[in-house]
Amino acid sequence: MKYNPLAIPTENSSAASFGFKACDGGVCAADGICAAGISAGFRRNPSRKDLALVCADKTCVCAATFTKNCFCAAPVRVSRANAASGVARAVLLNSGNANAATGDEGVEVARKSAALMAQELGCNENEVLVASTGVIGVPLSFDPFAKGVPQLVAELEHSAKASRDAATAVMTTDTHPKEFALEGEVALPDGTSRVVHVGGFVKGSGMIQPNMATMLAVITTDAPLSSKAAHSALLAAVQSTFNKVTVDSDTSTNDSCFLLATGCAAAGEIEVDSPAFLAMSAAIQEVCEVLARDIAADGEGSTKLITVDVLGAPTQKAADKVARSIANSPLVKTAVFGCDANWGRVAAAAGKCGVAFDQTNVDIDFIGVPVLRAGLPVLVDETEMSHRFAADEIPIAISLGAGIYHSRIWTCDLTHDYVRINGEYRT
Amino acid sequence: MKYNPLAIPTENSSAASFGFKACDGGVCAADGICAAGISAGFRRNPSRKDLALVCADKTCVCAATFTKNCFCAAPVRVSRANAASGVARAVLLNSGNANAATGDEGVEVARKSAALMAQELGCNENEVLVASTGVIGVPLSFDPFAKGVPQLVAELEHSAKASRDAATAVMTTDTHPKEFALEGEVALPDGTSRVVHVGGFVKGSGMIQPNMATMLAVITTDAPLSSKAAHSALLAAVQSTFNKVTVDSDTSTNDSCFLLATGCAAAGEIEVDSPAFLAMSAAIQEVCEVLARDIAADGEGSTKLITVDVLGAPTQKAADKVARSIANSPLVKTAVFGCDANWGRVAAAAGKCGVAFDQTNVDIDFIGVPVLRAGLPVLVDETEMSHRFAADEIPIAISLGAGIYHSRIWTCDLTHDYVRINGEYRT
Repeated sequence: MKYNPLAIPTENSSAASFGFKACDGGVCAADGICAAGISAGFRRNPSRKDLALVCADKTCVCAATFTKNCFCAAPVRVSRANAASGVARAVLLNSGNANAATGDEGVEVARKSAALMAQELGCNENEVLVASTGVIGVPLSFDPFAKGVPQLVAELEHSAKASRDAATAVMTTDTHPKEFALEGEVALPDGTSRVVHVGGFVKGSGMIQPNMATMLAVITTDAPLSSKAAHSALLAAVQSTFNKVTVDSDTSTNDSCFLLATGCAAAGEIEVDSPAFLAMSAAIQEVCEVLARDIAADGEGSTKLITVDVLGAPTQKAADKVARSIANSPLVKTAVFGCDANWGRVAAAAGKCGVAFDQTNVDIDFIGVPVLRAGLPVLVDETEMSHRFAADEIPIAISLGAGIYHSRIWTCDLTHDYVRINGEYRT
Repeated sequence: MKYNPLAIPTENSSAASFGFKACDGGVCAADGICAAGISAGFRRNPSRKDLALVCADKTCVCAATFTKNCFCAAPVRVSRANAASGVARAVLLNSGNANAATGDEGVEVARKSAALMAQELGCNENEVLVASTGVIGVPLSFDPFAKGVPQLVAELEHSAKASRDAATAVMTTDTHPKEFALEGEVALPDGTSRVVHVGGFVKGSGMIQPNMATMLAVITTDAPLSSKAAHSALLAAVQSTFNKVTVDSDTSTNDSCFLLATGCAAAGEIEVDSPAFLAMSAAIQEVCEVLARDIAADGEGSTKLITVDVLGAPTQKAADKVARSIANSPLVKTAVFGCDANWGRVAAAAGKCGVAFDQTNVDIDFIGVPVLRAGLPVLVDETEMSHRFAADEIPIAISLGAGIYHSRIWTCDLTHDYVRINGEYRT
């Protein structure tokens, strides 16, 4: 008997449907944004960059989301307070030390670094957002900031190289800098059409299961988003992209995602009820999605990106729960590492999480090949399946036959290198 | 500054406090119980036993708990129906094939195997409980039952060897058979005191996060428990032992735990309101706890048993949630594999799961050594710590300072061998 693969819905209007296409420049693609990345001495290895700055030419609209981990880091506390105003000038990020579990002294270092940055830029202290990533529980020295902040300002550039330097300076166990940008023409509320950009970078590879935020991410745009529009677009994008990534089910203490909207592309303001808002939301969502997928694909030790689609769930929450249960299953993740279309583990992971369904209605596809229909195995051409496993991305789809809801989540396989990296590396 | 280790409460009256001590005989320690384990042909390797029988001399009280996985196996459906009567004669278990995702044909094979067993023993078909473990989604052949069931009955013995054969026949990736027994004198409702026994075996190594049941376990006693007492004692024991084990957060499709109470030790009935019930509950709990710890210690690829104690939680549910979050964290598990007292990962795992606490009240101990006090790191003697990591059992304790509730959970480290076993083995 021949079965058709499951039909996966595409949930959102794509950025392409609004005329956006990929462009160079990463976080610097947006007009009015400069960046820099240098080695300031947070790491022992002087050849590794460890301090990054993303800076608007003048104070602009900002939005931000942060980790919900109770054990949040000092910079999260400082940035959460500063971002509340809805405007910002710059984001200062260091790697090599997370400034987490460092008490009042840690908060003081984070605050002082923002103050020094503000002094160098000539803005208010609360217009500087800060973020840190690296080892937890070690006091963060202020010295590298004292030396590095003036140097960062001196090196600020609106260039693809500067964007890449900044994206490189926030890396920890990431194997490559992760950046992306889009450009497209958008019809503005004042009747004109202008070319706008959305770009950004992200860092993240382990301790990844963001909750209401991602790992460190900076997104920029030159579209004139209102403060409310910036918040709405960022929250919606984070919810369906960074919050749908899991490498190892561990949520960081430092997750932060920032959006700077310079407004340099056009006059006026894009409000949430305008057609331009839909286009900008789609573009911001796509930049976040590309970066989120890159986090999953670059998960510690991973060899493959896994995309899990859950169809036919009774509620959205149930769809999300089943998708997360499958994506976090070590047995599913090791099966993909072993190039084994092991639908039994997918079925077991779906069935364990408290969502009710009838197993005789369940269908499963591995890499577009039906492997289970109505709860019973389908004979699979093992040679064709092993060819398909050569791909970098392994889609797994399951339909519960219990409703209409869909959820997608990204993860990676679980490999020897994950164990090696985390058995040896002290976070 | 010198800190004292956290004080871990002991929650239950121990079996020792009721005079119980370990004895030989495993599942056959109880009077009136025989067992057998043979190679019947479920596995390709004829030198591996794969069919087990635990049998009471006559029909007796039984209690059972089963997986809550929606994708439950055929034998779970048959046994759930048969156990509802509260009496049983025998438990028939095979390894090598889970009889899961096998549709109506799978249920028919499970039912037929129970019927054949009943015919051989001369009891009713619904007095036979069945369980299977092994590969999912492959039709289970009836032939090995046709050949093996009469042979099992011929080999039934009340002996330590028979118990071990049965415990061996249910193994999959387990590295050793897991059995334990206790004996003690109990004051009975009729005023006499009698020596009673509680024994059992369990199998389980991967796909382990039982929910309301364990992997395959058979517990027996010769104490004259009433049906209600047997149910109460088993459910309470399972809740605080097998349900508190996690190897990889994956709940099996086949989890089943059976208790047979032959009543051979004494006349009368032990009801739930009698002093003897407390003693029997403690003994059943301890047998389950020893077997549960053995599952965690023998988790796939594991080198160490990890005991996680969460103290000072605001509710029991919160304590359980934080304990499970820590025990399922791949970062915590790889840190233990790497002999790294990485309290940062423990703190992050505690903070991520939605339980509210103030990080400045958090204390953490690794192997009895204070490593975090009031949210700040404590200087640790690294040499002493590395000596302590040589132990087979690694206790991790965290106090949230947010209430009075305590939870304990068992897990194991995450190693290269877990990835090797599950990247290569098709479940």
